[in-house]
Amino acid sequence: MTNAEMLEVAINEAIISRREGGIPIGAALFSDSGKLLGSGHNRRIQDNDPAIHAETDAFRKAGRIRDYRSTIMVTTLSPCWYCSGLVIQFGIGQVIIGENANYLGGESWLLERGVLVNVMNNRQCEVMLKEYIENNPDVWNEDIGISCKV
Amino acid sequence: MTNAEMLEVAINEAIISRREGGIPIGAALFSDSGKLLGSGHNRRIQDNDPAIHAETDAFRKAGRIRDYRSTIMVTTLSPCWYCSGLVIQFGIGQVIIGENANYLGGESWLLERGVLVNVMNNRQCEVMLKEYIENNPDVWNEDIGISCKV
Repeated sequence: MTNAEMLEVAINEAIISRREGGIPIGAALFSDSGKLLGSGHNRRIQDNDPAIHAETDAFRKAGRIRDYRSTIMVTTLSPCWYCSGLVIQFGIGQVIIGENANYLGGESWLLERGVLVNVMNNRQCEVMLKEYIENNPDVWNEDIGISCKV
Repeated sequence: MTNAEMLEVAINEAIISRREGGIPIGAALFSDSGKLLGSGHNRRIQDNDPAIHAETDAFRKAGRIRDYRSTIMVTTLSPCWYCSGLVIQFGIGQVIIGENANYLGGESWLLERGVLVNVMNNRQCEVMLKEYIENNPDVWNEDIGISCKV
């Protein structure tokens, strides 16, 4: 499976989230042989659950795994510090990122820790999220933890 | 509410988890006035969900919050990189830690980022988790992402 094919799975999750009225960010966890282990999307709006980012949803959907070193986390957006911490803590070996134009998370930290990072600069990921952010700035700021004093 | 009283809420969550057969780590999120916003515990065993650490469970139970800067995360154990990332990303202002003898997570990172960190060196937290780790080393290693090649 190519990186683009794996990213397609994450993009489809983002599209599902958008259709549900949620934040269009998707992710998927693959084995190094390209087997899909789990996929998911941001569920802040859908479940009123602030803890479910795309990456944590894909991670949970994959169930319990004894060794993550050979797994690949594919996400439509640069992972935030929370999701980067997930990658570091569980030793996920590789992260494929759709885009980091709308948000730049913990990529430098991942690289420092020896995680393989591949940014795809995917236009579809970028446009889809950019449109959402423009229409829902408050939800977006809430999702990345930017406090706005009213 | 004193730090010890807030920690008591997290300890009770850890005790519930132990009773359920799970990893005895608990956490609670409080407002700066001492109001309990949410509490929870590790649910790896109970729900087969590797994404639910005590801190992420307390965070989700608290629901959507617009501004975390004045909130206090209380946890029986030093938060791992995943849970430290949660604190950093959402700007939680203070972390009260039961103990860091069984595991030392991202405390230095939290301090660097200006989070107030208070380690209580609580004996009950330490003994309860130590006993679990001794009896369940594989589950414990899985929970902190230590890979053991069989």
